[in-house]
Amino acid sequence: MTSPDLSSALSRLRAAAPLVHNITNQVVANITANALLAIGASPAMVLAEEEVGEFTPKAAALVVNLGTLTAPQRASMHVATEAAIEAGIPWILDPVAVGATAFRLGTAHSLLERGPSVIRGNASEILALAGEVAGGKGVDSAHRAEAAREAARRLARRSGSVVAVTGATDYVTDGTGMLAIANGHPLLTRITGTGCTATALIGAFLGAGLDGMAAATAGLAVLGVAAEEAAQRATAPGSFQVALLDSLYTLGDAALARQARVSAA
Amino acid sequence: MTSPDLSSALSRLRAAAPLVHNITNQVVANITANALLAIGASPAMVLAEEEVGEFTPKAAALVVNLGTLTAPQRASMHVATEAAIEAGIPWILDPVAVGATAFRLGTAHSLLERGPSVIRGNASEILALAGEVAGGKGVDSAHRAEAAREAARRLARRSGSVVAVTGATDYVTDGTGMLAIANGHPLLTRITGTGCTATALIGAFLGAGLDGMAAATAGLAVLGVAAEEAAQRATAPGSFQVALLDSLYTLGDAALARQARVSAA
Amino acid sequence: MTSPDLSSALSRLRAAAPLVHNITNQVVANITANALLAIGASPAMVLAEEEVGEFTPKAAALVVNLGTLTAPQRASMHVATEAAIEAGIPWILDPVAVGATAFRLGTAHSLLERGPSVIRGNASEILALAGEVAGGKGVDSAHRAEAAREAARRLARRSGSVVAVTGATDYVTDGTGMLAIANGHPLLTRITGTGCTATALIGAFLGAGLDGMAAATAGLAVLGVAAEEAAQRATAPGSFQVALLDSLYTLGDAALARQARVSAA
Repeated sequence: MTSPDLSSALSRLRAAAPLVHNITNQVVANITANALLAIGASPAMVLAEEEVGEFTPKAAALVVNLGTLTAPQRASMHVATEAAIEAGIPWILDPVAVGATAFRLGTAHSLLERGPSVIRGNASEILALAGEVAGGKGVDSAHRAEAAREAARRLARRSGSVVAVTGATDYVTDGTGMLAIANGHPLLTRITGTGCTATALIGAFLGAGLDGMAAATAGLAVLGVAAEEAAQRATAPGSFQVALLDSLYTLGDAALARQARVSAA
Repeated sequence: MTSPDLSSALSRLRAAAPLVHNITNQVVANITANALLAIGASPAMVLAEEEVGEFTPKAAALVVNLGTLTAPQRASMHVATEAAIEAGIPWILDPVAVGATAFRLGTAHSLLERGPSVIRGNASEILALAGEVAGGKGVDSAHRAEAAREAARRLARRSGSVVAVTGATDYVTDGTGMLAIANGHPLLTRITGTGCTATALIGAFLGAGLDGMAAATAGLAVLGVAAEEAAQRATAPGSFQVALLDSLYTLGDAALARQARVSAA
Repeated sequence: MTSPDLSSALSRLRAAAPLVHNITNQVVANITANALLAIGASPAMVLAEEEVGEFTPKAAALVVNLGTLTAPQRASMHVATEAAIEAGIPWILDPVAVGATAFRLGTAHSLLERGPSVIRGNASEILALAGEVAGGKGVDSAHRAEAAREAARRLARRSGSVVAVTGATDYVTDGTGMLAIANGHPLLTRITGTGCTATALIGAFLGAGLDGMAAATAGLAVLGVAAEEAAQRATAPGSFQVALLDSLYTLGDAALARQARVSAA
């Protein structure tokens, strides 16, 4: 599989400044909004069932994240994804801890029926969503990304979505080809919300008009390269989180092209 | 219009250490609480309809922010503002993205009937609340503050509230006079929650006993001057957010008086 | 009372990497998750009544925090604490602002019946929970920790829980003995969520297998020592919060043993 051309992905996103509608969790809402602003998108967190049907069609992309799922939020997710489909707006699903409870798995399965453009999870989440392992524990992955590569491919084929599995190396597949993104840094696992941030960045690239494979690849490469830059200035999680936001803001197309390690896998 | 005397506003706030009750959104709850602590107020986020009627009268000021509005939160806002009016407690309305949905606009209009001391929004929000543009997109303003100056004046006259429109230059009006606050920095638009922080700071000054015009002017001048100081130490949004909190904490009356650019407009 | 042996507490926690289930408030969810990751635990915020009964038994400890209590969250707390008791999982109660409203006090009393392993609050909260003062204002304590020492002892005796009162000096009691932890820094009172972070850290040590007295002592000593280290690098709240997360990550057993000031009280 040929790597998508990312040489102008960042400038394209910044020119579009896409409005990204997030129905996300309470833990990461702030850092997600800040990451989207840093990269050049315009985030909005609009949650109520009463209004998401009216709001989603104004956005360029929709991000649905199950992190702190509640029954009212599940209802909003159904309305918003329905509106996204009707309006032709791309959307991405982040099935946080989907293997941990029946409530999450049921919600994720019903959302899958609406055909997300992209699904992004860690290995445990993708394995659980694909039905290939029972259970799972918390929000941190108990599996390495490699263990979920083939499950991701099958899930992509079945769902029609691009599937991204994130870990030390990330994998992105449309059910046929598979790309590996070998950027990142271990400190990404020591601050909360980096997976959710990856999802939101992919959402921003979808909103800027990239297709699923290109958006997933760009979002993960951007986060990975920004993390590598941040880790040169910060060696502990508090300062790393600050440096990561700074790097998302200062990163340009040239540095991204030079540092991204994307290959067929 | 004469500028309010801000020469002792900060020391007055810090001596009072007002308890500021916030019914605000999930995205900015943390940064709002930290900004209030940094400036010298005591923040409380108490949300449930079952208790806000008992809690609000203990506070010195109430902040109502529509950012992640839900139906239960709307009910709490009605109870809390009712309690604030009965107890004579000043309150401020932040109509986040009010033009984006009927749910927000309807909620904002019903809250307006309870006569907030101050309304603070960006230009798009003030135009929408004043009924002078239909629609609006996300949470970021599609208009420059100047475009909403006269709408703000009319809204102030009709509502009896002081109205603050924030942007590159901020404007504050009581329906007759108009002040311009020409402080701030473009990085304020690259981190989430700075508008909400402005609202909370105005709430703190209301809680310290300043009237609406003085509180709005002080809150916006403090945020703008702190942003200018932060931008001398930080050039990207992650480190700017950290520096901004630091500046809110270290800013004193003398520096505020020296650096604030408040003028009749 | 002899101080618990903390000489290997941090390495024990990091080896266990306990999954800590938090039902906590919107203001501190992010900083709590980051503090738990920094110290070496694995945080999960799972909130819905529909799933907490299934999720809690997978965790090593449960943290229940009343900060932004709502009726649905109260229902989840009852299900989760029930599940924790049945599964033999330790849990800790943080009765934020419990004296401020009847809704909070009633919820806290009903949770107390399920026998938390540890209760952690500031002096005003512990006095209110013990029934020894009526009222209370916001979330910041109106009393010094010393004022609540004997109330804490009586509450511990009555509830069977270890009770921790935090302030300039912290006190921990099982109803008989009492330990003082004299670490910390005044900047801890100028950022939001440090009390909630203390609670979460105690939860992490409970999840690593320490008993209530040892977990409470370790959690408070770790936060206090980390704050002292952070205050050597940062003198204002924004940078202090960043430095505090860094210190939680870099702190080791040797430094903790050297710097912790734990004594019988």
